[in-house]
Amino acid sequence: MKGVLLSICPSARLVDLTHDLAPGDIRGAALALEAALPFFPEGTVHLVVVDPGVGTARRPLALRARRHYLVGPDNGVFTPFVEGAAAVALTAPEYRRAQVSRTFHGRDVFAPAAAYLAAGVPLERLGPPVPDPVRLPIPGSRLEAGALVGEVLDVDRFGNLLTSIEATRLGELPGSGPLRVEVAGHTIGGLVEAFAAGAAEAAAAIVGSTGRVEIFVRDGSAARRLGVGRGAPVRVRRAPEPG
Amino acid sequence: MKGVLLSICPSARLVDLTHDLAPGDIRGAALALEAALPFFPEGTVHLVVVDPGVGTARRPLALRARRHYLVGPDNGVFTPFVEGAAAVALTAPEYRRAQVSRTFHGRDVFAPAAAYLAAGVPLERLGPPVPDPVRLPIPGSRLEAGALVGEVLDVDRFGNLLTSIEATRLGELPGSGPLRVEVAGHTIGGLVEAFAAGAAEAAAAIVGSTGRVEIFVRDGSAARRLGVGRGAPVRVRRAPEPG
Amino acid sequence: MKGVLLSICPSARLVDLTHDLAPGDIRGAALALEAALPFFPEGTVHLVVVDPGVGTARRPLALRARRHYLVGPDNGVFTPFVEGAAAVALTAPEYRRAQVSRTFHGRDVFAPAAAYLAAGVPLERLGPPVPDPVRLPIPGSRLEAGALVGEVLDVDRFGNLLTSIEATRLGELPGSGPLRVEVAGHTIGGLVEAFAAGAAEAAAAIVGSTGRVEIFVRDGSAARRLGVGRGAPVRVRRAPEPG
Repeated sequence: MKGVLLSICPSARLVDLTHDLAPGDIRGAALALEAALPFFPEGTVHLVVVDPGVGTARRPLALRARRHYLVGPDNGVFTPFVEGAAAVALTAPEYRRAQVSRTFHGRDVFAPAAAYLAAGVPLERLGPPVPDPVRLPIPGSRLEAGALVGEVLDVDRFGNLLTSIEATRLGELPGSGPLRVEVAGHTIGGLVEAFAAGAAEAAAAIVGSTGRVEIFVRDGSAARRLGVGRGAPVRVRRAPEPG
Repeated sequence: MKGVLLSICPSARLVDLTHDLAPGDIRGAALALEAALPFFPEGTVHLVVVDPGVGTARRPLALRARRHYLVGPDNGVFTPFVEGAAAVALTAPEYRRAQVSRTFHGRDVFAPAAAYLAAGVPLERLGPPVPDPVRLPIPGSRLEAGALVGEVLDVDRFGNLLTSIEATRLGELPGSGPLRVEVAGHTIGGLVEAFAAGAAEAAAAIVGSTGRVEIFVRDGSAARRLGVGRGAPVRVRRAPEPG
Repeated sequence: MKGVLLSICPSARLVDLTHDLAPGDIRGAALALEAALPFFPEGTVHLVVVDPGVGTARRPLALRARRHYLVGPDNGVFTPFVEGAAAVALTAPEYRRAQVSRTFHGRDVFAPAAAYLAAGVPLERLGPPVPDPVRLPIPGSRLEAGALVGEVLDVDRFGNLLTSIEATRLGELPGSGPLRVEVAGHTIGGLVEAFAAGAAEAAAAIVGSTGRVEIFVRDGSAARRLGVGRGAPVRVRRAPEPG
């Protein structure tokens, strides 16, 4: 793919975002893209290849969203950016490789499209508009019986748990006692200000870099310590006022 | 190595092809190079460091083949490109680091040679010609009792099996019934057109991006499902005509 | 982080040194930096993010040392370069991201500082001088009862053992018999000249690319074969003269 990119657009700067996603982990890719895209320069082309269904009728897409470009399969990986985006299907033969293999659309369809966009070809030239790109349900949180209820969205390579509970919603919680985070039968005391503020070996919670509540164990793996993974339910409430 | 490359040729564009080869997996490196090289621009320098025998009498080589350059140990890793190539041994001291360590020829011999080639130094300046670079036997297929017989060449990180059977030879099979692929006691029905066309959890076969027959399991690992790995025999035949 | 780097300094060349360090392995990062830095061009900015204590009172630092720049946490990772270096704390708000998250100082503090240095901002503008960056004890060797005594500093991905015994000290050993390396109850005969000179499956010793004694098993893992890891004691002596 990088050979194709540089053959078409020799001046392109290539940056690898991650190679650590599990095969077919579309939601993990969507979250990685959501976390990274805003920090790249405007006009960046983000090329995503994560798809268990390569070679199917899955439409290959390119989007323009928030002054960035996104290229990849129409499987929901672009969900965080679909709202208000312009999208096209990558069907124009002059912007694909002449011979498209059955198994490597990254090389034969997506890389050429990304390279032509980087070289200045207008999005609309790559193919017809797609009004309805696939959207993936990405869990958020709901207020229920005085608690924000969500789930573990992802586990990073340190074993930190990324929850679906947005820090911006914490103000909706009734009461004024300290925050309590519950996961898998464990209750974790309020939000700390830094990873190192957690007591060693005990789980703690923090607002992470994507604005969501994260659960971690200082110098260790929260996933292992608590025995939980993706999908585990999480609740945040305020402790009753003392006395 | 990248520091040495950029010190000698500051304008070089560096692309990592793969870091996922097992230590000493020369054939895997040869296959990766065979699959990727044609998609890079002409004049690209391909630097390969894979060798259990660093520091031996193994000659360090540079080749010019198909308008590309290749640099690495003379251990067979360049087999797919040796035919018709110009090759030299990397002995000219002015194109090596002044002090060559015993263990890190990638840094002290190969990286400087690659950087000087990228900077425009003619191949012939790097050392004397090598008429006979080492060639590795890379299995193909043979026609035997009405079947194409080959083997599993490699297993990728998805568990897909790359076989040694070239799609271009399928026309040699007698008969006109549907294709049957046999591996490790399993019989797999004809070639599908897309990964997603395989029945879930059943193995299927497809012509892959390198023009060879590949065996996969949709959303899973064919290597694990079938219990086979590198070297397992594979046969492709045509089923008898119905009725 | 790469998005931030390229947003601030679009012409920066990005090179990944390693992503294979264990989380929080500060000494491993210091050794990797010590091994690689001298081979990069003068003026290179080396950005290191390895820290179990992100978000603590740990000072974020930038150093100028040996005509290179280093950026990262003040946790000892720069130990090999601290002597004689100029160091500042990264406190100047105009060279950080406007909003600094609690958990991702790599993105919000270190990447901006590295990018501004690469873009030509003088070190002294990033914050006040730090006279005493943290230094980590990095084991060396001592002469004791006619032997150089050290330890296993690190194990690389091939299972080679990097010891703390510097080749430059081998001349201090009394006697003139062949060298003997002892580790974990095994005695390994003298230093070989090349990896391939080791007998297959037996451990051998060599002077590695960082000038220290290394222990390896040809085509295998010395760590597994000898059952030793980081911290295991190592002794080098000369064998008694024959006769």
